[in-house]
Amino acid sequence: MKINILGCYAATPRSFTNPTSQVLEIQNNHFLIDCGEGTQVQLRRNKIKFSKIKHIFISHLHGDHFYGLVGLVSTFRLLNRETELHIYGPKGIKEIITLQLKLANSWTNFPLIFHELTSREPEVIYENSKVIVSTLPLKHRVYTNGFLFKEKEGDRKLLIDKAEEYNIDFSLYKSLKKGKDVVSEDGKLIPNYLVTADPQPPKSYAYCSDTVFDMELVPLIKGATALYHESTFLEDQAKLAFPTKHSTAKQAATIAKAAEVGTLILGHYSTRYHDIELFRTEASPIFSEIILADDGKEIIVE
Amino acid sequence: MKINILGCYAATPRSFTNPTSQVLEIQNNHFLIDCGEGTQVQLRRNKIKFSKIKHIFISHLHGDHFYGLVGLVSTFRLLNRETELHIYGPKGIKEIITLQLKLANSWTNFPLIFHELTSREPEVIYENSKVIVSTLPLKHRVYTNGFLFKEKEGDRKLLIDKAEEYNIDFSLYKSLKKGKDVVSEDGKLIPNYLVTADPQPPKSYAYCSDTVFDMELVPLIKGATALYHESTFLEDQAKLAFPTKHSTAKQAATIAKAAEVGTLILGHYSTRYHDIELFRTEASPIFSEIILADDGKEIIVE
Repeated sequence: MKINILGCYAATPRSFTNPTSQVLEIQNNHFLIDCGEGTQVQLRRNKIKFSKIKHIFISHLHGDHFYGLVGLVSTFRLLNRETELHIYGPKGIKEIITLQLKLANSWTNFPLIFHELTSREPEVIYENSKVIVSTLPLKHRVYTNGFLFKEKEGDRKLLIDKAEEYNIDFSLYKSLKKGKDVVSEDGKLIPNYLVTADPQPPKSYAYCSDTVFDMELVPLIKGATALYHESTFLEDQAKLAFPTKHSTAKQAATIAKAAEVGTLILGHYSTRYHDIELFRTEASPIFSEIILADDGKEIIVE
Repeated sequence: MKINILGCYAATPRSFTNPTSQVLEIQNNHFLIDCGEGTQVQLRRNKIKFSKIKHIFISHLHGDHFYGLVGLVSTFRLLNRETELHIYGPKGIKEIITLQLKLANSWTNFPLIFHELTSREPEVIYENSKVIVSTLPLKHRVYTNGFLFKEKEGDRKLLIDKAEEYNIDFSLYKSLKKGKDVVSEDGKLIPNYLVTADPQPPKSYAYCSDTVFDMELVPLIKGATALYHESTFLEDQAKLAFPTKHSTAKQAATIAKAAEVGTLILGHYSTRYHDIELFRTEASPIFSEIILADDGKEIIVE
């Protein structure tokens, strides 16, 4: 599981930082999560092939999370894309994009499929044979969702030496991987657990940006392999966090600890801070497994 | 008269070039012309103060000319701008911007005034005591205007030595600058031409992007001090220019020559070309006073 951070700074622009966007690579899917202005250039800089992106998830309709979307869609058109593009985001996103394509007289030559979200409850919004994606309702100034990306339980791991020892025909290996008991060539019933091992535990990634500090998130993201939780502020500006519906680094760490996640990735830093190490300093007494997101950083989660 | 080129490349994104945007500084006005994605970051990089921008002119609703507008407007809001912002552009631009502000629940705290354009004839769209701005109807795939920025005729230049020699009271100097004849202290009528000189000839800047080759432009931009004319292609791709409604460098030079402009600025280069000097090579046999636009370049026109 790999996360390419394309941008992880809050809205005020600077010449050297980017608003929110990241690519999650999980089970050969490349999911684009949020798409702030300049995302298409950041994709180029990070050498991520445009054609790999088939699903885009937009958390909310604040500009620093989606103003780059229409440009990316237009570029897909210029590049003669033919494959479907699915966009998941708050109701209204379809009108915004299609209005601009209409006025530019630039309809896409590929199927552009919007999945507009309105639910205040978690819901599954995408699923394939390997991965399932659900919403994480967040509390922000406008309707906002985080997203939970979960690998599905894989096949059991076949212990080939054992299978051979028990004289199991290799045509039955597939059944073994699926967890079934089988009959050996000499007619004995072989319980599955003797010749297989547990599969790799499925990994999961919870993306939570933007959100006020909200302990109701904890059960929804319990045990996630990695959690990206916004930390717009440090505690020195805690008084701003609640009214703007953002979180501090300490609050992000509190969520990570309560949810017993593997790794906490911090990001969405206010551009008032010039040293992001301060976010680690504040969060780490509460939760030690911290990675600081930064533009252009590639994060591998095991 | 100064032009800061923020971006001057056609639509396909690259990691090191920017779509169209430029700032014209003329008589203490800072006019932003077009606003492709990433313009706000380019303003920062080129150290142009956001607060100086009070008028934005958008040529047409193709993304590479305006996808950065909504982000810039949103940033003005974040920065607590209070002064009016005027946006001139094709009908539809108001709906695009206001829809996005509405869905983000982010109304501006400053007056945001749209001047939507629909005319196919040249028209004056802005005027103050020093400068007048008119549209230049262009032929492109969607409704498009170029813009002509003209200084107004200035006051006559007072020749102080002569005024003293003719015994003219200094309370009359203002009348002299306005071109009036005056009576000297010894009662003689002094014709204006004896004590003043012609003012600096007013400068003008014609911005023409995007457009097919169109000789009908020539009378509208006749004698402009500087002409920015798009040159998306070289003649090697001339067959693409007409169907896409763009121009070649040779065609831009042909317009510049016929219009007897002072300087031709080339830009809006297709990203298929890796050496923009080729545009100069092609255009200069026809018209010699050429400046190649490039991102971050400051062009002073005398």
